[in-house]
Amino acid sequence: MADEHPLQGVEALLFDVFGTVVDWRGSVTKEMGLLNPDLPNEDWDQFAGEWREGYYTRTAQIAQGTGGPTNVDVLHREILDSLLEETRWKHLAEKWNEEKRQEVTLVWHRLGGWPDTTKGLYELKKQAIIATLSNGNARLLVDMAKFADLPWDIVFSGDILGSYKPNPKMYLGAAERLSLPPEKCAMVAAHLRDLRAAASFGLKTIFVRRPTEETAETRSQAKDKKGGGEVDVVVDSFNELVEILNRR
Amino acid sequence: MADEHPLQGVEALLFDVFGTVVDWRGSVTKEMGLLNPDLPNEDWDQFAGEWREGYYTRTAQIAQGTGGPTNVDVLHREILDSLLEETRWKHLAEKWNEEKRQEVTLVWHRLGGWPDTTKGLYELKKQAIIATLSNGNARLLVDMAKFADLPWDIVFSGDILGSYKPNPKMYLGAAERLSLPPEKCAMVAAHLRDLRAAASFGLKTIFVRRPTEETAETRSQAKDKKGGGEVDVVVDSFNELVEILNRR
Repeated sequence: MADEHPLQGVEALLFDVFGTVVDWRGSVTKEMGLLNPDLPNEDWDQFAGEWREGYYTRTAQIAQGTGGPTNVDVLHREILDSLLEETRWKHLAEKWNEEKRQEVTLVWHRLGGWPDTTKGLYELKKQAIIATLSNGNARLLVDMAKFADLPWDIVFSGDILGSYKPNPKMYLGAAERLSLPPEKCAMVAAHLRDLRAAASFGLKTIFVRRPTEETAETRSQAKDKKGGGEVDVVVDSFNELVEILNRR
Repeated sequence: MADEHPLQGVEALLFDVFGTVVDWRGSVTKEMGLLNPDLPNEDWDQFAGEWREGYYTRTAQIAQGTGGPTNVDVLHREILDSLLEETRWKHLAEKWNEEKRQEVTLVWHRLGGWPDTTKGLYELKKQAIIATLSNGNARLLVDMAKFADLPWDIVFSGDILGSYKPNPKMYLGAAERLSLPPEKCAMVAAHLRDLRAAASFGLKTIFVRRPTEETAETRSQAKDKKGGGEVDVVVDSFNELVEILNRR
């Protein structure tokens, strides 16, 4: 008897966005350079990394119930302000007024996809419902989809589902609104933490190796369950996922 | 000085779906015929109208706070059951078992667009954010978008915003999630009731004349504010709306 396909019965693919669908680090670094031609010597790659780190910390706190904004624009702005107050970046504080800080915060709306992203999503959309399941806010995800040509069937965001991953409201809320049991949904992410949470609530899991996400060791060691690993499927690109789904 | 364009500043178009984007009456009539070749003499057009009437009544009650399902699949099924229990359609009750009733309920997921719908939405998507603002549930709207090729940027539904139109949670909830003040959103609908509610919460209003919605008299007498009417814009098709937006 043939083995059951690891994504048998999956009707919806729920995508983590930052890092999985779009290259946040490369995009923020590039956009910060474009926005700040007067500051040619700043290490925007480092700046992007610290900004992102603050975001991880704050969303994790809020997901655990500490309270705080579920709109990522507001959160990105708070973290930007704290970077400018307390850290090696404080020399930028006097250069950036209110208007400039708002402008800088919106770089997170202009993130570009990985090379396989747009073509892959158009193909996947023929095979399943494709949805964001992101801590980003709805407007940010809509702007990004227009900017990077991401043809989502539906957008699930922190401010639509009222929390942040890894809170169960996110994973189970998306499944419920798609009228699907969790096992008919697969989480697609470049981060094992996200996939572990998804699996704990009954979703299938698809790990995508992305060059700037997780460590090189984690990426190379990631295995599917058949190979003794913890996720249902491991891929290097969305194109590879299209092929795997075609074999169902 | 030139008059201000009636849609000046509008960044998002929020679409009523049933009747405005899709021809629910024609589609349900056709799908019911296809599903029931053994019942060639039923008046499915009449059946569709009564089913829809029950939906109007129930959603209006729930929007006022009476309690009840905010998932339209559940609601459509309840109304179907009551049609089969109490009305001229009760001869169908014994013919349709549980499985058949579920199948029949899903005809509302397979509604086709008006002739101008798909092309018009693809053009409008270049000019603004295009979103549903429908009492339909999210899954129904996603299925319908795939079936009829409706390229929504984002889906707002009864089960996402937690109520039904004309409750303010719907209009203001959509604007909030798009990070827009109400006046930068325009409601697009073939129903004046919907547009009156939208206007009362500060949204701009676009009336679309559709052959089976409102009465012939209401359609022919609808005027924009410049012409002494109550809505911001009146159009016969989405293509006409594209042209009007191009003149901004």
